[in-house]
Amino acid sequence: MSSLLVDNIGELVTNVAGSGEGGPLGIRRRAALLVEEGEVAWVGPAADAPAADGRIDAAGAAVLPGFVDSHAHLVFAGDRAAEFAARMAGEPYTGGGIRTTVGATRAASDGELRATVRRLRAEALRQGTTTIEIKSGYGLTVADEARSLRIAAEVTGETTFLGAHVVPAEYADRPDEYVGLVCGPMLAAARPYARWIDVFCERGAFDADHARAILTCGQAVGLDVRVHANQLGPGPGVRLGVELGAASVDHCTHLTDADVDALASTASDDGQTATVATLLPGAEFSTRSPYPDARRLLDAGVTVALATDCNPGSSYTSSMPFCIALAVREMRMTPAEAVWAATAGGARALRRDDVGVLRPGARADLIILDAPSHLHLAYRPGVPLVRQVLHNGVPR
Amino acid sequence: MSSLLVDNIGELVTNVAGSGEGGPLGIRRRAALLVEEGEVAWVGPAADAPAADGRIDAAGAAVLPGFVDSHAHLVFAGDRAAEFAARMAGEPYTGGGIRTTVGATRAASDGELRATVRRLRAEALRQGTTTIEIKSGYGLTVADEARSLRIAAEVTGETTFLGAHVVPAEYADRPDEYVGLVCGPMLAAARPYARWIDVFCERGAFDADHARAILTCGQAVGLDVRVHANQLGPGPGVRLGVELGAASVDHCTHLTDADVDALASTASDDGQTATVATLLPGAEFSTRSPYPDARRLLDAGVTVALATDCNPGSSYTSSMPFCIALAVREMRMTPAEAVWAATAGGARALRRDDVGVLRPGARADLIILDAPSHLHLAYRPGVPLVRQVLHNGVPR
Repeated sequence: MSSLLVDNIGELVTNVAGSGEGGPLGIRRRAALLVEEGEVAWVGPAADAPAADGRIDAAGAAVLPGFVDSHAHLVFAGDRAAEFAARMAGEPYTGGGIRTTVGATRAASDGELRATVRRLRAEALRQGTTTIEIKSGYGLTVADEARSLRIAAEVTGETTFLGAHVVPAEYADRPDEYVGLVCGPMLAAARPYARWIDVFCERGAFDADHARAILTCGQAVGLDVRVHANQLGPGPGVRLGVELGAASVDHCTHLTDADVDALASTASDDGQTATVATLLPGAEFSTRSPYPDARRLLDAGVTVALATDCNPGSSYTSSMPFCIALAVREMRMTPAEAVWAATAGGARALRRDDVGVLRPGARADLIILDAPSHLHLAYRPGVPLVRQVLHNGVPR
Repeated sequence: MSSLLVDNIGELVTNVAGSGEGGPLGIRRRAALLVEEGEVAWVGPAADAPAADGRIDAAGAAVLPGFVDSHAHLVFAGDRAAEFAARMAGEPYTGGGIRTTVGATRAASDGELRATVRRLRAEALRQGTTTIEIKSGYGLTVADEARSLRIAAEVTGETTFLGAHVVPAEYADRPDEYVGLVCGPMLAAARPYARWIDVFCERGAFDADHARAILTCGQAVGLDVRVHANQLGPGPGVRLGVELGAASVDHCTHLTDADVDALASTASDDGQTATVATLLPGAEFSTRSPYPDARRLLDAGVTVALATDCNPGSSYTSSMPFCIALAVREMRMTPAEAVWAATAGGARALRRDDVGVLRPGARADLIILDAPSHLHLAYRPGVPLVRQVLHNGVPR
């Protein structure tokens, strides 16, 4: 395979802590990066750049690891634009609209679902997302959950079985029976296509006992755990995630001191927590809800990731730069913290060490900005600043 | 010149009130639009579309008038990303940083300024902005204001002389003298390149007497009036604008009942106010300030426009879709009100009837979305949804 040199990089964000300026961002100036066989082969001063078969001139721009979006719901049919407009006119978000999408998803053909997944995956890639997690959760039958994951697995290795998104209408008065279905035939059908198991642990969705039962069943067949936790109100989700060794607890909008302490208690030797708090400010933006308290988590030493929550109900954005801008404006993260959370943080939330970082051996997933600094991702909100994306070393 | 048919439009926003659904948006379904000689030549049902030399298939997507960004400061040098990061860490916005940009702008060559203006104009056009107003105001010498406007006039007819942006440091203790300079030789040098005159009427910038003197001088040589008013605190700007027949008073973040009443008193026969309130939510986003009360203005019958305020200090966004999303989330405008304000509202703020509307005789400035409805501009925040732009009938 041929080699490719990304040269004349004004600011290279490596996320190799201590390897340059900017603390965790490991920023190198006037740098170059060599790609071989889809991986980063070399990083160093532009003046020392090795010869290569091809060359991309970054023209002094900033280069960052591609975004790692660790939370997205892309397998669905229909949209809920009218529900969004009604909510903006004052109707509260209750999560009840999920069932609207379940109906549309069940009624859709494989081809329709596949087209939506591919359209949104491509849209995210154009915006710099090189790794994306995709959940099921709008099928809620054995067949519809399995096909959701099968279609998701066509575009990503980070697939999550979320049969326990809500109790579907036909099981409304038999939740125990639905949990049995999820743990039994639905999990068995989903297993070949899934890496992760997830539960929406929330009032109106699944309580702690049901969530624990489902997540434990998933672990028993080799799935790793992530949890939708503490989005709409305080609850047991975060502590349950910590108890089960979840890679991530997602949303974290309503936390008690005990929740924060539980997360902080998972600190490991490298200074990160084993359970990451993944914040999804697009959801608070699109439901006009109060934002999570990122500073409280960061100050307690909890590792924070940012993700889009891309879904047709509560956060129909695929834009990681938008989430970064919100994190800075609304959650008082510094631009550096937000960029780290959207790259290395997302990788931690997926327990990956080959993405979200630019060092020899890592995947050559990177973005070249139309800007001289990572700061511009927050400083220039809404502007499509991703000029070029390399995914597995291939320019897209 | 050849004709071009935009066909298979799922939702056509015409902004011709009463010509379809959606009240002021005048929405037509399953429509087509014919372009000839840079103008809209025909609008009607797709089934009745006339023959044309060329055809663009909108594939069922939404088509809207191009955005009209009536407030942008694109002639500058340098950036203030570090100031932005400091502000996000808690430093308040005082407008004092304008002088940083003045120094950089004076030191820049014509070629550097031109490159920035063209880069940002192209960036805005890609995002659907087909009409843009550009102000001077970072030169603040006779020569630097004149060249700023000369360079702006290369890319737009909507040029605004803002010699009264702030009192430059060298006149700090002689503001009367600076006002004399603005009204005298600076205005004379700017006049050939300017359509509008504007003053930043604010504590720390220009008071009512100075602002009135400058605006009146501009009117005397044929410039029309717009005013930066009531951004950082209550003040006389809005009422001064109404007194002088301004096309627009911009920011309107801090209004008294008397200010709202003054704006409402300019109502004309077509149901719009002669003086438009132009809201710039990108500035509140990027300075973490409270947003203007759009509902109060709309409920009082005041015409509202949305614009970016694109500038390197307080709002470095060029994205009208981002402003629409903020208007809906933060200012409780409906998606329809926000889309109207970003198109027809901007046109009113520039006293233009040939843009911001899609009817025979209007300029063929339009955008095709990657979405079935205008709702998606707010429903999908941060996502670049503008698939194609036609400017003066030419696909870009």
